[in-house]
Amino acid sequence: MINGMMMHCNLNITSIMQHALALYSEQKIVTLKSDGVTTHEYTYEDAFDRVAQFANSLDRLQVSKGAKVGTIAWNTYQHFELHYAIPCSERIYHTINPKLPHEQLIQIITSAQDEVIVVEQDCLHIIESLHEHLKPFVKYFIVLGEIDETLESSLDFIFYEELIAKESITYDWPDIAEQSASGLCYTSGTTGAPKGVLYSHRSTVLHALTLSMANVVGLDENSCIMPIVPLYHISAWGIPFNAVLCGSKIVWPNSFAGNIEKIYNLIQTQAVDVSMAVPTIWTALKNYLQENNITEITLKRAISGGSSASYSLIESLSYHGIALENAWGMTETSSMGACNRINNLNGLSKSQVLKCGRPIFGMQMRLKGKNNELLPHNGVSEGLLEIRGHSVAESYNSNSSDQPTDKTTGNMKVWFDTGDIATIDVRGYMNITDRAKDMIKTGGEWVSSVEIENAMLGHEKVAEAAVIAANHPKWGERPLLILVAKPKAYIKHIEIETYLANRLHKWSIPSATILISEMPYTGTGKISKKSLREKYYDYFMENQ
Amino acid sequence: MINGMMMHCNLNITSIMQHALALYSEQKIVTLKSDGVTTHEYTYEDAFDRVAQFANSLDRLQVSKGAKVGTIAWNTYQHFELHYAIPCSERIYHTINPKLPHEQLIQIITSAQDEVIVVEQDCLHIIESLHEHLKPFVKYFIVLGEIDETLESSLDFIFYEELIAKESITYDWPDIAEQSASGLCYTSGTTGAPKGVLYSHRSTVLHALTLSMANVVGLDENSCIMPIVPLYHISAWGIPFNAVLCGSKIVWPNSFAGNIEKIYNLIQTQAVDVSMAVPTIWTALKNYLQENNITEITLKRAISGGSSASYSLIESLSYHGIALENAWGMTETSSMGACNRINNLNGLSKSQVLKCGRPIFGMQMRLKGKNNELLPHNGVSEGLLEIRGHSVAESYNSNSSDQPTDKTTGNMKVWFDTGDIATIDVRGYMNITDRAKDMIKTGGEWVSSVEIENAMLGHEKVAEAAVIAANHPKWGERPLLILVAKPKAYIKHIEIETYLANRLHKWSIPSATILISEMPYTGTGKISKKSLREKYYDYFMENQ
Repeated sequence: MINGMMMHCNLNITSIMQHALALYSEQKIVTLKSDGVTTHEYTYEDAFDRVAQFANSLDRLQVSKGAKVGTIAWNTYQHFELHYAIPCSERIYHTINPKLPHEQLIQIITSAQDEVIVVEQDCLHIIESLHEHLKPFVKYFIVLGEIDETLESSLDFIFYEELIAKESITYDWPDIAEQSASGLCYTSGTTGAPKGVLYSHRSTVLHALTLSMANVVGLDENSCIMPIVPLYHISAWGIPFNAVLCGSKIVWPNSFAGNIEKIYNLIQTQAVDVSMAVPTIWTALKNYLQENNITEITLKRAISGGSSASYSLIESLSYHGIALENAWGMTETSSMGACNRINNLNGLSKSQVLKCGRPIFGMQMRLKGKNNELLPHNGVSEGLLEIRGHSVAESYNSNSSDQPTDKTTGNMKVWFDTGDIATIDVRGYMNITDRAKDMIKTGGEWVSSVEIENAMLGHEKVAEAAVIAANHPKWGERPLLILVAKPKAYIKHIEIETYLANRLHKWSIPSATILISEMPYTGTGKISKKSLREKYYDYFMENQ
Repeated sequence: MINGMMMHCNLNITSIMQHALALYSEQKIVTLKSDGVTTHEYTYEDAFDRVAQFANSLDRLQVSKGAKVGTIAWNTYQHFELHYAIPCSERIYHTINPKLPHEQLIQIITSAQDEVIVVEQDCLHIIESLHEHLKPFVKYFIVLGEIDETLESSLDFIFYEELIAKESITYDWPDIAEQSASGLCYTSGTTGAPKGVLYSHRSTVLHALTLSMANVVGLDENSCIMPIVPLYHISAWGIPFNAVLCGSKIVWPNSFAGNIEKIYNLIQTQAVDVSMAVPTIWTALKNYLQENNITEITLKRAISGGSSASYSLIESLSYHGIALENAWGMTETSSMGACNRINNLNGLSKSQVLKCGRPIFGMQMRLKGKNNELLPHNGVSEGLLEIRGHSVAESYNSNSSDQPTDKTTGNMKVWFDTGDIATIDVRGYMNITDRAKDMIKTGGEWVSSVEIENAMLGHEKVAEAAVIAANHPKWGERPLLILVAKPKAYIKHIEIETYLANRLHKWSIPSATILISEMPYTGTGKISKKSLREKYYDYFMENQ
């Protein structure tokens, strides 16, 4: 084939920044300050002046091109600035979840080899405790928030505000090749070591552009979006790029995602009309509205991800004029890979509303049967969900041996195995019906059932252990432990809690234990999780 | 920089087709048949079955990969099918304007070296008259419409419907590299030979994706769009790709763009809510609504391009609930490069509404001063408009010596010189204030003032000639001829018409002639078109 004769312009994050500056320089960005009461407000233009300043700072500090810059930070304007300053100056931002266990933080930061770590003041103690592990490669610790002369630390650090204050607000932005790495985020979902997904400028821009479509997120200049989901969860599902591309007002709730009163007040005072969070937050909002007899709210769309929102929650929020929409995605899909756009509930069946949704443009989905055959998209056939797309990981960052793709197809097309069992219907609605990998999503965090089972199998009284995700009114799902005890043994739940306390993160400890006499098995001799789920999925709903 | 570790999927037109089939296979496409009364209706799935059939036909006919396939056709489902079957089977569709003078048609088709020409029955005579020129390279003539056994022609032709009927509705679509050429369209705007813009799969997909943004066209599954603008004008401004990407219902008005009663009936019966056309059509619609005392119409947005719509027209349509929005683009920008999105007229100044609009994402704009210096975007400074973007031509198809880009900048970034003089304000609104190239846009067609002037200078009575675009109530603009006669000579307009009749296409013949005693000049000794425009721009409005 001959080539077209059109310009090649790089799909890089810089082009989003420059487009927004040309059209939307006066648009607002509002952040709830760390006092939880007052707000910081500025314009896109102010933000990108500071982005240039931090890019100049990184050059002045001689941070290598291609270096990873770790961020341990909340949803604030400063963290937002890092999402541009780092990649647009040819470094790679690496968002780190401060709530992970220390062991995982060490694994992740060591794998990334962050040359710089930018950290909130209230997370500084985390880094202090990890310092022995980090000092071989971390050259600078930069502290966010306002300058506080009284702040003491065992680390040699620099204040972000002090650093950028001296710098020029212009920067000669390079035209970065689109395949260049821009960001890094580790998925801690499995029993193996955390695996890093290394986003490119191209994958990020195409993802942001696709989210802009009217039937996906569809923001514009009149929208006001508040990402409640943290920036360390895949850059708050890509909103720092998508919202700026669309010229929307952005509201950052800082570390107050869990404080529903502050969230509600931000929505009302800033006229937020779109927001994104896990179902746990939406349940809290629903309860808050009900308890306070609030009927009017500026919020019109609540996009829910991480796990599926229940129909009763969707119905309740619909009463308040809020369309709660399920979306599906993974760290490996740059966040949203499918969405279930709802204009209103009328005429939609309950089962359709509960589905994960339809793939966004550029996301291909297929179902594989037990013999690797492709299954029809008829809404009934269940198979392993495999995906392919512009914003899907091809492989994991180095130091991660577990590679995601099936490179054995021979047709040069790699597909990513999601580990989920799903159906797809003729209108493209995908629904996850089972988990091949036995993961549990609780309050937006992944818990590995296999990890808990392995820990339990070391207990002297345990013959067999199975952990399933069970429906939970607050956390979406919680791990439920099902045991067969050794002959003549008897175990209480309190013993389990004590036993696991030093072995697992607290959110991984099952919320209840059920003793049974015999496990159900599948035809191939494995414990049938499906049977256990059918029997015990609503255990927490029925036994509160 | 190190590369990201994300999948590389090609941005090709095939991916739009496959996405639409996965999500929107049941969506409707409606075409007004050539009888002007009945409609042809089918689904996306039906359409893409036939697309596969024609792709199979092209293979069976052994049409080369990379061959150009010329189309001389109206806005119908068959022409729509060609927009997918040709590029997705690794050929290049080449849309040809049947209304061009024969000389230009010969130039264009000879330049393209079309291996196949697909033609409407009522355009067959055009091809017959060109046959001597085409027979060295055109291997097949394929005739659209329904099979008519009585159709006679001096050409050896095949019916499209006969050809595809035998073929399979499946095709093993190749994964086309995104930089591959997909389409070709000639711009006939200048005095030189027509210049071909060779679109790539990537430029086409990125353009379609950007049009999907809420603040550009922003279609979704609930939209019904009717492109009145012909498919031979840059693929009806990209709608065959954008509408399918968004899953919208499409209505094709066949060759009836100029029949406002049929257009109105299609809007109402099909519930069209978005449409695209030149201002001439919107003026006709406004008149039709007024003359027939119609207040209600399903149309909500009318996108106007080709030339600027007047404020009085925008106001009149606003009364009927139609937002008439100016957009700007060129064949070299894959159609829309800027748009002036209006939610309602309230609060918008007249001057803002009349601007060409804001650049779409991926379109960079800059203004150059007389000494090649970059001018500020302050809404006041006027300079030569240069652009750069994913969907902007880098050079012209071979056989066109006139290349568009300024490759002398040395920074590897080429910019396209639009030939327009413009301003850009701080919110990105671009407005064309003058034409560097002296082109006239009349009823959606370009006329070169220089071509008319050169023809006139051959007239025995003419000393000096200048042609300007003058405001016209029906055609948007019409050429107005301003002459200085030779000493003692006197010329009537009727003499001009007779003189030019054999020399120019009929739409290039000026609608009026003004004799003056002396031309105004610029400082550098050129005729001041700007002075003439200031004096005579409203000539047709004042002298009807």
